[in-house]
Amino acid sequence: MDTGDLGLPVPVPSTALFTDQYEFTMLQAALRGGTADRRSVFEVFTRRLPEGRRYGVVAGTGRVLDAIENFRFEEKVLRFLRSHGVVDGPTLDWLADYRFRGDVYGYPEGEVYFPGSPIMRVEGTFAECVLLETVILSILNHDSAVAAAASRMAVAAGGRPLVEMGARRTHELAAVAASRAAYLGGFASTSDLAAGFRYGIPTVGTSAHAFTLLHDTERDAFTAQVKSLGSGTTLLVDTYDVAEAVRTAVEVAGPGLGAVRIDSGDLLLVAHRVRQQLDDLGATDTRIVVTSDLDEYAIASLAAAPVDSYGVGTRLVTGSGHPTSSMVYKLVARADGDGPDAPMRSVAKKSTGGKTSIGGAKWAARPRDAAGVAEAERIGTGPVPEELAGVTLQVPLVRGGETVGREPLDAARDRHRRALAGLPMSATQLSRGEPVLPTEYV
Amino acid sequence: MDTGDLGLPVPVPSTALFTDQYEFTMLQAALRGGTADRRSVFEVFTRRLPEGRRYGVVAGTGRVLDAIENFRFEEKVLRFLRSHGVVDGPTLDWLADYRFRGDVYGYPEGEVYFPGSPIMRVEGTFAECVLLETVILSILNHDSAVAAAASRMAVAAGGRPLVEMGARRTHELAAVAASRAAYLGGFASTSDLAAGFRYGIPTVGTSAHAFTLLHDTERDAFTAQVKSLGSGTTLLVDTYDVAEAVRTAVEVAGPGLGAVRIDSGDLLLVAHRVRQQLDDLGATDTRIVVTSDLDEYAIASLAAAPVDSYGVGTRLVTGSGHPTSSMVYKLVARADGDGPDAPMRSVAKKSTGGKTSIGGAKWAARPRDAAGVAEAERIGTGPVPEELAGVTLQVPLVRGGETVGREPLDAARDRHRRALAGLPMSATQLSRGEPVLPTEYV
Repeated sequence: MDTGDLGLPVPVPSTALFTDQYEFTMLQAALRGGTADRRSVFEVFTRRLPEGRRYGVVAGTGRVLDAIENFRFEEKVLRFLRSHGVVDGPTLDWLADYRFRGDVYGYPEGEVYFPGSPIMRVEGTFAECVLLETVILSILNHDSAVAAAASRMAVAAGGRPLVEMGARRTHELAAVAASRAAYLGGFASTSDLAAGFRYGIPTVGTSAHAFTLLHDTERDAFTAQVKSLGSGTTLLVDTYDVAEAVRTAVEVAGPGLGAVRIDSGDLLLVAHRVRQQLDDLGATDTRIVVTSDLDEYAIASLAAAPVDSYGVGTRLVTGSGHPTSSMVYKLVARADGDGPDAPMRSVAKKSTGGKTSIGGAKWAARPRDAAGVAEAERIGTGPVPEELAGVTLQVPLVRGGETVGREPLDAARDRHRRALAGLPMSATQLSRGEPVLPTEYV
Repeated sequence: MDTGDLGLPVPVPSTALFTDQYEFTMLQAALRGGTADRRSVFEVFTRRLPEGRRYGVVAGTGRVLDAIENFRFEEKVLRFLRSHGVVDGPTLDWLADYRFRGDVYGYPEGEVYFPGSPIMRVEGTFAECVLLETVILSILNHDSAVAAAASRMAVAAGGRPLVEMGARRTHELAAVAASRAAYLGGFASTSDLAAGFRYGIPTVGTSAHAFTLLHDTERDAFTAQVKSLGSGTTLLVDTYDVAEAVRTAVEVAGPGLGAVRIDSGDLLLVAHRVRQQLDDLGATDTRIVVTSDLDEYAIASLAAAPVDSYGVGTRLVTGSGHPTSSMVYKLVARADGDGPDAPMRSVAKKSTGGKTSIGGAKWAARPRDAAGVAEAERIGTGPVPEELAGVTLQVPLVRGGETVGREPLDAARDRHRRALAGLPMSATQLSRGEPVLPTEYV
């Protein structure tokens, strides 16, 4: 067990308290009432995409697997639950031995999803599954929101590389997970060293306005930076006057200057002027990086500008207007009785106020047309129809408590690129619209 | 040093990698260029409040103090920086000995703020201060966003208690900080056990729809819950038919039933009906808890409804539309030369595209009228005018590297209540408007 696998720059021994209290009180009541061991199926899904979005992106699966493995109750956690009267003695004894021994299936990480897609399915006893609700949802809701924004930004950027630089705009550990999700969604690198440390994501960064302001002149600052980081570095040129800074930058670093960064102003206009100036100065290979309050729309609007890469912060880590994914974790089936051979029964809350749930453990499949383009998100219960057997979406992630679905982050990143390429072309329109695939219940 | 003080349910040894790479490359260039030891003043402020908001809430200060104390470079972090070529050997040697030895002043936690308020000021050498940018901003931007939403919700709720239950809608560790910020902003309790464990915030929770669905009948579920948790528990009554559930609930628990929870439907209408039904059944002391997609506006709209408490999730932890606070960390003054006696010089980036900064270390004061109501947020550089000496806002937080501003979370919570009470009455209007105090530069 690698406890470093929690999205943290340092190991954390347990995820067991990333849990809402009601999961423990339900556990206690079920243990006492004799229903705790009923075989149960919980599903993660979302009733809708954020308004106007055409697809969602599954992200966080790898972190969920780590969180389940590390969901254990050490003595100090048990002591807290005891001293605060959260649960009774028999429940504490049960928790002391807890480890998840059930099965988890789900959409592989990086896959796209639509309203109703059974993104993850957790099977086991009621007791062992009910405890995982909050930690699973926290991870998937956060990471998927960031990945969806990242994916749209990567589409908008065409082939130009994107740098994630939003750590300062979100919780310090959410930032690490956000870097991971951004990379999965198509970003090339991050400014966040904790993300580099933890996930091996390439890190970048050179200087801020403070560095220029520290020096008596801009020339002094550029000279110090080039001396330290070489002429391939990126010089920030908008502290005072951009044109003067570009001239100074090329004088100091030579025409081999790596890049200039523009962090304010009318980026379209300024980028054109800076490109012209750089070319006139012979710095034809010097790249232009822009980094000012970008989102997918701003990135798209710069498509015709001579920009070589984008740095994105706030709007990325806050999901570009949708900082969470509205995924829920619902009991959809459970044993109809207490014996080990009791048949399974589909269950669902009665629909009110739009909170629709459909009972039963679900499969999902995405058939394609002759050109290989996805046609629909088909969802059903019971056996998978034969014609869909080759295009089902869920894969085993945990079997009998053993993680079987772990994979490198790059595998999820590659999968996302393929999944997106397999959708109808309108998937990548930035404009508001309906989900690009209809959800069809079979 | 209590490394548990990081908002984590478990200790974390270091916060040194919650840092953007450019802070390290600036450090290296400044060390090599001889400017690293220039005395510097950095300030945290925001150029504007989220659109329509009338005040901001300072939150996260306590977590910042912990993060600064724990900003140290252990061997494995240095190894990472070395192996990834982030910085050179002399810089690594410098980092190995790093601890912050400067001073920090700031608005005390729970205080309100306005555009331009110098929320935090960090003084020391350029080298020691520049490294703290990202971790300070991450914490303040996140926590203040949640606290501001919480404060508005608490205002909307009048005296009725609010429960924070948004863990599932945000990153699992952001959730712990969000609970803390919500409590500071006026929430009474949380569902998040990690927040209870870490910060001693009261925790609550009883059951979800899954518990009802687990049982063969709703009556079985209620019976099991009451048997386990007592008749003072909260029964969830909207899994099937609310009226039938309320009848069953009182039959099972008796008229001493603690509360019923409604999680869907037209809450105003349903709450009235349920109250009438409970009263008719003699359960006149049974409380009504509502918990369905609430925000400050929905809470306000239920003011006349017979609701006893509110549970709030998504909209709270995502800052009710504003998940971050746009605070920045800017160099505003630095030594004009390299000697220890060099005079300080105000510095600022040239304004373009609305990114205004005002140079110089700032004081802030909030004078009051005869009735004790705040009149303005007055900000200046240089000595504090005599008439404002009694109403300045900043307090010492760190002196010579030693934390001096630590306080219990309840102190910040009380301060917030007092700060809000001292603002003009229009501060608590939910409708969009201008900041309730004008920012005046003296």
